This record gives sequence, C-alpha cells and structure tokens, in this order.
Amino acid sequence: MLKKIDHIGIAVKNLDNSLKIYETIGVKPYHFEEVESQKVKTAFIKVGESNIELLEPTSEESPIAKFIEKKGEGIHHIAYLVDDVQLAIDTLKNAGFKLIDETPKPGAHGKLIAFVHPKSTNGVLTELCQHAEKH
Amino acid sequence: MLKKIDHIGIAVKNLDNSLKIYETIGVKPYHFEEVESQKVKTAFIKVGESNIELLEPTSEESPIAKFIEKKGEGIHHIAYLVDDVQLAIDTLKNAGFKLIDETPKPGAHGKLIAFVHPKSTNGVLTELCQHAEKH
Repeated sequence: MLKKIDHIGIAVKNLDNSLKIYETIGVKPYHFEEVESQKVKTAFIKVGESNIELLEPTSEESPIAKFIEKKGEGIHHIAYLVDDVQLAIDTLKNAGFKLIDETPKPGAHGKLIAFVHPKSTNGVLTELCQHAEKH
Repeated sequence: MLKKIDHIGIAVKNLDNSLKIYETIGVKPYHFEEVESQKVKTAFIKVGESNIELLEPTSEESPIAKFIEKKGEGIHHIAYLVDDVQLAIDTLKNAGFKLIDETPKPGAHGKLIAFVHPKSTNGVLTELCQHAEKH
C-alpha cells in the first residue's frame, strides 16, 4: 500500500533562513507553493525519490505556528505515496486506525491527501497522498 | 552530497506492538538488530528506496528512553545516505554546522554514521550514513 516516502514535512520559522542551510550543502528547492487551507508557505527539496517539504506558517492560526509554539522547529509529518488515498483511508479505518481526515482533501502539488492521527502511529503524524496525475 | 533518505528513525516503547501497526497495512520488517552503543533494539521496514527504523530502548539510560520520556514516542531522526561520511562531516563543519560526531562511528547494518546537531538543522536530528560495502 505504501509505495514510497513522498516527503517529510519540517516546520520552520523562516523559509529563507532554512533554505540557506540546505543550499550550503548543495541542495536547492525546485517548487514553492502557498497552501491557503493550512496557512503555510512551502518549499520542496528533492532528495532521491523523496522530498523535504519546509513549512513556514503565514498566520499565527496556522497548525504549523501552533506546532512550533508547542514543540519548536522540527519534523512535523511523514507523507507516504499511495495509489488510492480513499482506499488507503478505508483500509486503515477498518483496521482500527484513528483518521484525522476520513475523506481526501487537496494538498500542495494538487495532490489528494489525508492525515492519520498520531495516536495510531507511535506519535508520528502520518499523511497519505495520491498524485494529482492519477485522476 | 545527499543521495537519498536512508531511513527515518522512530522512537517507540515496544517494538512488537509497533510492528503490529505496520503489519496491519501489509509492510513487514526485514532486519532486526540490537545496537549496543545506543542501547536499542531496532527493526527495519522497507518503503520504496528508504527504510523506517523502529527503535526500542533496552535500558533507561538509552538516548531513546530519554527522548520518549521527554517528548513521547515519535520521529527521532532522519538519516541521509552519503558516499563518504568523513567528507560530509568536514564539508558541514567548514560551512559552520554544529556536529555531534566529528568522526564517524559504527551504526546498524555495519554502516559508518555521524550525527549533526539539531541546532544547525531546524530542530531535526540528522544522521549521515555511509554503506558498509563502500569500504
């Protein structure tokens, strides 16, 4: 069901400062996107088949702002690529997992995404995502 | 310099319980190893080109036991594969990064590893690792 690690989301206070860290070691972002629903600015950096998604809150009400306030900067979530996010949601639900999203919602890159509650996954906020081109 | 995400280390209280979560969705561990220096039992699960490394402390003095006590279960570190861990250490050091290990040390799978201090990397404990077969 899990095809690969699509991305690791990292909560940062300032995108530009964080990008400097990655640029120091020769990796550059290839995509920037503001995700209005999450109140974040994002930058994507490719590493192998996966991505690092840096997330800077654009409002104090952003879930990322609240995360940073509570825990400081750091890893926010892991996202796995699946073929069919609705099927993945149903499979996990039937297996007793607690879902945050029981229906897919739009994410960055036009993907369909859903979050699994960290209570079901050893404290790891887990995203399932399906590529837009599969539609 | 960073070739791929080699693994994501997840601190868990009980390896068997955590493996049940992954087995529910059809992914199984392919490698178990006790790492004496870190006082942990580990299980590796392959996802695409990367791995999930579940880490259960075998002693209260394990860094993983301390992590769980302070922050609860969850993501402990990200490890990137590099060709030459000593070269990577030197590059980061020259670029002003704070290193935890200034010389490589042995990790699971006979790899050479070194940790970068999370203060230099947006709160993300970062491991650099080099495959054993490169020697």
